Order: sequence, then C-alpha cells, then structure tokens
Amino acid sequence: MSAQSLARPGHGGNLTWAASIAGCSPSEILDFSASINPWGPPQSALEAIQTHLGDLRAYPDPQYRVLRNALSQIHSPLEADWILPGNGAAELLTLAGWDLAQQETTYLLTPAFGDYRRSLSAFRARVIEWPLSEQQGQWSFPALGLDKRGGLLLNNPHNPTGRLFEQEMIEPYLEQFDLVVVDEAFMDFLRPQQQQSLVARVPKYKNLVVLRSLTKFYSIPGLRLGYAIAHPDRLHRWQQWRDPWPVNVLAAAVGTAVLQDHAFQQHTWDWLSHARSQLVNGLTPLPGLRPYPGAANFLLVYSRQPVPELQMALLKRDRILIRDCLSFGELGQHYFRVAIRTEAENQRLLDAMTNILPSL
Amino acid sequence: MSAQSLARPGHGGNLTWAASIAGCSPSEILDFSASINPWGPPQSALEAIQTHLGDLRAYPDPQYRVLRNALSQIHSPLEADWILPGNGAAELLTLAGWDLAQQETTYLLTPAFGDYRRSLSAFRARVIEWPLSEQQGQWSFPALGLDKRGGLLLNNPHNPTGRLFEQEMIEPYLEQFDLVVVDEAFMDFLRPQQQQSLVARVPKYKNLVVLRSLTKFYSIPGLRLGYAIAHPDRLHRWQQWRDPWPVNVLAAAVGTAVLQDHAFQQHTWDWLSHARSQLVNGLTPLPGLRPYPGAANFLLVYSRQPVPELQMALLKRDRILIRDCLSFGELGQHYFRVAIRTEAENQRLLDAMTNILPSL
Repeated sequence: MSAQSLARPGHGGNLTWAASIAGCSPSEILDFSASINPWGPPQSALEAIQTHLGDLRAYPDPQYRVLRNALSQIHSPLEADWILPGNGAAELLTLAGWDLAQQETTYLLTPAFGDYRRSLSAFRARVIEWPLSEQQGQWSFPALGLDKRGGLLLNNPHNPTGRLFEQEMIEPYLEQFDLVVVDEAFMDFLRPQQQQSLVARVPKYKNLVVLRSLTKFYSIPGLRLGYAIAHPDRLHRWQQWRDPWPVNVLAAAVGTAVLQDHAFQQHTWDWLSHARSQLVNGLTPLPGLRPYPGAANFLLVYSRQPVPELQMALLKRDRILIRDCLSFGELGQHYFRVAIRTEAENQRLLDAMTNILPSL
Repeated sequence: MSAQSLARPGHGGNLTWAASIAGCSPSEILDFSASINPWGPPQSALEAIQTHLGDLRAYPDPQYRVLRNALSQIHSPLEADWILPGNGAAELLTLAGWDLAQQETTYLLTPAFGDYRRSLSAFRARVIEWPLSEQQGQWSFPALGLDKRGGLLLNNPHNPTGRLFEQEMIEPYLEQFDLVVVDEAFMDFLRPQQQQSLVARVPKYKNLVVLRSLTKFYSIPGLRLGYAIAHPDRLHRWQQWRDPWPVNVLAAAVGTAVLQDHAFQQHTWDWLSHARSQLVNGLTPLPGLRPYPGAANFLLVYSRQPVPELQMALLKRDRILIRDCLSFGELGQHYFRVAIRTEAENQRLLDAMTNILPSL
C-alpha cells in the first residue's frame, strides 16, 4: 500500500503508516511515538498467555472475578465491585463520554488526547475547553469559577505535557462538579510514594470516575486492557451499555499475572528515573529544542523547526518515529512528544536529532 | 465463591456458575450450553498466536487492513471498506442497537438472544416483538404488514430454534424497512452451497447490516472476534462510536489465519451433518423430549419435565451443562438448547439423559 493512500495518523503508534514512509517493515521502526514501556511485555505476561491458551474455547467470565480481585488487592481496601475491567482504557473512555454527554456541559482540559473529543462528540456532549497555559516552562490550568457545574474530563499525569497535578489541585472540583473523569493512564509509571492518584477518593465522591490502563506500563497495547474505578451503581449502568465479554481471556489472565510482578515494576521505576534524565539532558542543548520536565514516561518538546519536517527526516533517514502534536490542535506544529525508551535507544534518537537538526 | 452468591446466568457458556453448582473446576464441565465448535481452535489459530506474540507491544493497526483484506477475499467481490471487524459480534451488536434506537420503532424477532434486548434498551430503542410461532414442529414468522417501517432485527439461522430462513423470505423486508440488521453468527456452520446469507445483498441495500462471528465456528469465544458488513458510510459512523483499537492483535492475526484453513472448515462441515443426526435420533425416543430440526450447530429441545430441574441434575450428577431457555422469556421452562459436540460427547449427554429423565 502506498504512503499516499495512508492519512497521517491522529494517534501515536501507527507503525503501518510510519513503515510506508520509511520504506521498511513496521517491525523495523524505532517507535518513540507510542508511550510504551520498552522493557515489556514482562516474562510473567508471556507465561500467562501460554498457560491460558486452553481458555480460548470458552467465553470469558462476564464478572471477570479473578482479574477484579487482583485489581482490588493492589487498590486495597477498595472492593472488587468498584472496579470494571475494559478492552483497554479506550473502551471505558467511550462509556465515560456517554455518561458525560448526559451533563449540560463538559469542561475538557486541553491540549487533550484526541480520543477524548471523539468519545464526547460521538454522543453529542457540549464541550467547553479548559486550556492549560505555559509559563516559564511549566504547564498549569487557570482556576475554574465556582459557578461552573456539569462534567469535567482531565488526565493526570497530563498527556502530552507530562505535568503531574497534585491531588489537592483537583479535589476542589470533586466538590463542585457533577461528574469528574480523571484518566490516570500513566500514573503507574510513578513510584507509589510519588503518585497523585485519586483512586482512594472514589468511595468519598460518587461523582468521580478514575480510568486506568495496564497496556502502557506492561507493554501490551496490542492485547488491550484497562479498568475504571467508580461507584458500583455507575459501573453497573456502564455494563448495560456494552456486551458481556469485552475483555478477552488472554488479557484478563495477563492482567492478573503482571499486577503481581513486583520485580518488573521495580525495574521499570529504576530505569525511568535514569533514562528520563538522560533524554532531558541530551535534548536540551540541541539547536531549537526545549523539553519540558515530565512526570511520566514521555516528554513534550518544543521545536523551533516545524515538526512535520523533522518527523519525516527522522523516519526516512533513521526509521525513527516521533509523535507530532498536530492532533493536539492547540499545540500546532512546533511541539513533538517522545516516549522514553532504553538508554541505547534514547541515544540513537539523540544522535539522529544531532545529525538532522542543523540541516533543516 | 459459593453457588448461592452466583446468579443463574442469562447466557450460555458461564462455566464459573456451572462449576459452583457441580462442585468442580470450570474445566471439568462438559459444556453443551455454549454453541461452540468442539474441534477448535484449529492448529492454524494457535500457530498464529505464537507467531504474533511480538506484536503485543504495539497498538493494533486502527484500519485492520490485513484482516479486512482476508475477510474481503472470502466475501469476494465485496471490498474491504464494506467490512468492520469487532471485538466479537457482540461489540457490533451494541453499535447496531444504537443505530436501531434512532428509528421510531424496531421489530425484534422473538424468542431472541438476550443481548439483543440489552443493546436495544441501552439506548432506549422502542421495541415491538415479532414472535415466531410453532406449527407441526416448524418455527416460522407471520408476515409483517406492509405499513410497518423503522428497524428490524433478526438472526439467521435463528437462535435458539435453529430455523434457517431462506433469503427470499427476508428480502421483501429489505424493501420495506429503514434499517434491517441480520445476525448471521451461525451461518458459517452451513456448507457454502446451503447458506442463505444476505452478505451479497448488502451493496444493493444501503439499509442492510449483516453481523458475522468467527468465535463459534473457530472456537475462540475467549479471544473475541466478529465483523459487520454494511455500507461504508454506516461503518464509518459506527467507528466514531467506539475507540480506534477494539480488536486485539492476536484476534486479528488468528482471524486472518483461520479464514484460510480450508481443511478445518471441511472437517467441521463433515462432522456436523453426522453428529446432528446422531443427537436428533438419540434425543427423539427419550421420554418427554422433542428436538426440533436445526440448521446450525445446536438443537432446541422441548421437554415435558421442567428444564431447571433437569439442568441441575445433569450438572450435579454428570457435570454436564445444558442451556435453559429462561432468558428467552417466551419459551419458559419447557425448552432447552444443546450444542452439537463430538460423537463421544453427544453419547455422554444421551446416556446421562437416559439415566436421569425417568427419575424426575
């Protein structure tokens, strides 16, 4: 299939598109566009798949009891009926969009992951943008007036800026809004003592939904697995809006296994703090680039050179894919996002950038 | 978990529930309740999983090009953009429910698979029942008056009666109704020359949607895979109502592989014609039972004895699970459905029935 017939993707991780530009196979692309842990999937995930191949011939348990119990343990003392597994957090985002569309208006923190808009507009939610502003290299949101009501959708750590919001900054809005959805897809990349998760607040706030993903930290975006944490009444309602078996048995088995893989978790946290420093320190001196400090496993970078040009050059010359931010409309063509990868791979990116930037 | 804490399931294939009654592990249940091909998954499916384990760390191609091309080939000359893969046909049924809910009323052929009602009521569709009636051992539907408009949802072959409707019986309704959804989840169990699929009619009728499943014939309900065939405009609209990656990479790879596994297909068709006769001939002389002739891989059976009693006895004594029809409200407690399994397994069911029925 020719490159011309493939539209520029609105999401990261579209290796089919990238390969068509680079003139190679998708597996030859070094992908910095999808923010996926480079160390996974862990061995425990692959073993769980082999152990559960025999389950393919039976329907999944519609209650997903084993997986929900495993999730309940890591979020102890939260009970299993406060947890709803999904076919990736993306599936649950659609249900959240339907729920938010029942509100008169929904405030959306921007720039926002493109699928937030898709899920809101699918059900004709009325959206009001709540833009982050950048001051002195830090992204933050202006206070929302106390007269605001309805829905609120944000993510934390924020994608693509990498900004981590403290719980105390969000909590006033839990008192104020009728429905608050917080996407914490990247929260597990922070060490437990550094996380600012609102999961523990869910029993207090019936109007709070937290979305979590298991695909990024455990490198299984191809398998699809996420979960929502919210009041059981709301989750029961969501369950009526979808079929009884949205999570495949291999994803359910892998989720149960990896949640207990403490060695992999520790390794990831240790790697990330080093690798992030390496990438920030390597990008900062490059001509026209300015990386923002990020709490998660990716970095937003300002680029004086237009990013589409830089992106194409990296693909064609080095088979390296970075994430342009065109689908984050507000950011325009002077920002890109890169995943943090292994130290050797990060160095390949830095070397390629060093070679290409002066020639643009 | 105690049996008391598990509600009687509304679907077949709930082995967790069955095992709690039988006092054994789910894998020890002989499952006649889910209509799954006993010969799968084929070796080609398991090989595709092993070959594609490396894909787990990347997002699926949001266009699912490889899978759609494979599907387009088996439905030649249908082009790939008339086909939308789904996370099981069940996922697509929810989207069909949303589409049907835009119609003023939807006629639903009954008795109906429980999830039809769930998907229609989730989006507050106004449903009018269109009941099959039974005459002289044959199930058929009364003609719908020519003044009827709106939505129509039916399946063919019909579940749970097993009745196959000829294309000519359905085609007049394609002229009459504004949206017709035909679930052909079991059509592939018929030899190609015996099928009565409406797939080839889709280019002519923009108001026709055909749903197909790959999980039943290829025994992969745990992996989830189905597809819709409809006009590209409609499928593009459906795509906006869901996230970009609903089908996991292993399901996509398995689907592509099994569609080309002609040996498995031939073996299944050959087995089914023998095994179905065996089960019909074995059930007919048993006291109080009357099986209906079925076109698919399951049989509906009338039972003079109340089915819940028979079902419990089979579970406790023989660890055999049959499908009661309580969730098909109209049928009540005097019908059950059994999958057609291997000849040895069918014999186990017949022997167990022979022992139990006189004692009820």
